[in-house]
Amino acid sequence: MPFVVVEMWEGRTVEQKRNLVRAITKAMVEEAACKPDHLHVVIHETPKESWGRGGVLGIDMVENKS
Amino acid sequence: MPFVVVEMWEGRTVEQKRNLVRAITKAMVEEAACKPDHLHVVIHETPKESWGRGGVLGIDMVENKS
Amino acid sequence: MPFVVVEMWEGRTVEQKRNLVRAITKAMVEEAACKPDHLHVVIHETPKESWGRGGVLGIDMVENKS
Amino acid sequence: MPFVVVEMWEGRTVEQKRNLVRAITKAMVEEAACKPDHLHVVIHETPKESWGRGGVLGIDMVENKS
Amino acid sequence: MPFVVVEMWEGRTVEQKRNLVRAITKAMVEEAACKPDHLHVVIHETPKESWGRGGVLGIDMVENKS
Amino acid sequence: MPFVVVEMWEGRTVEQKRNLVRAITKAMVEEAACKPDHLHVVIHETPKESWGRGGVLGIDMVENKS
Repeated sequence: MPFVVVEMWEGRTVEQKRNLVRAITKAMVEEAACKPDHLHVVIHETPKESWGRGGVLGIDMVENKS
Repeated sequence: MPFVVVEMWEGRTVEQKRNLVRAITKAMVEEAACKPDHLHVVIHETPKESWGRGGVLGIDMVENKS
Repeated sequence: MPFVVVEMWEGRTVEQKRNLVRAITKAMVEEAACKPDHLHVVIHETPKESWGRGGVLGIDMVENKS
Repeated sequence: MPFVVVEMWEGRTVEQKRNLVRAITKAMVEEAACKPDHLHVVIHETPKESWGRGGVLGIDMVENKS
Repeated sequence: MPFVVVEMWEGRTVEQKRNLVRAITKAMVEEAACKPDHLHVVIHETPKESWGRGGVLGIDMVENKS
Repeated sequence: MPFVVVEMWEGRTVEQKRNLVRAITKAMVEEAACKPDHLHVVIHETPKESWGRGGVLGIDMVENKS
């Protein structure tokens, strides 16, 4: 039944997203007793110019990977 | 007052989105007694490489339209 | 595949929510060629003290139904 | 940097949610190279009367756990 | 047109939420040239047992206000 | 702890987004007693062909800036 929305910066490879979807689905099944068949995992990738933390925009931050 | 967020795969035409926004607005007015003037319907289209169901990424699924 | 999140004020009856879920699912199937079996419709109901429009909190507005 | 929103039915225990937050954080770190310190995992629990799949409201479905 | 969703822990007063809605609306008008009349600000308050950061659930953290 | 998601039409400059992130963070700190260090502000920009209000799609509306 459930769905999971992952919000993160752009830049992951398809292989990383493939593994992430599998790992999150596994976590939902094992820890929250969910059935996998209707379980969606959606990844929203946002450019660093549209995401800020602590009032500072991603493109203005020194460290890049988060 | 309300707003509706539709999350689905990329690929619908503008005409499909135009009709979908109209139909969802109609449903909100008729079934939930909403006023249309401040009612937003937003469609987030996600690439199939960023959406998984049952632990399998969209691009790895056999059937394409869902 | 898709899912729809409806954000609105608290206060609808179960019957209204039942009809709204059916109507939105119908709109998604008819207008966006979705398959109903994995299609989720989730209704988030927010108290009027936690929702504002035009800078004014719901509980401070004159008209109540939106 | 990222955050994860889990949308599911009401009813999990605190222990299940504790373990789910840990497991999803682990997945994000291991599969998407995220740093854990700013990584939020939020669980939205929705009553079955406010969630439908395939046009049918949760409370009207035969099987209860999903 | 836009809407803003604030996700935070439970516990703010109505007065804090009133002021927060006003201040965020002002920021949207002044910084992003939005018109206020259709601008929604919605506050989702989540219990600390349903929110984790760095893999640790809110109720298990030492510092309480975040 | 909190995060804020801004949903609006495409088209703002990086400078507008920089200022908006700063102003919203300031509002959260001043009005809701949040600490800025873990506070995310994410801007989702949606094309006008995927956003409707009052049943009318953005691209079909006369006034452009909202």
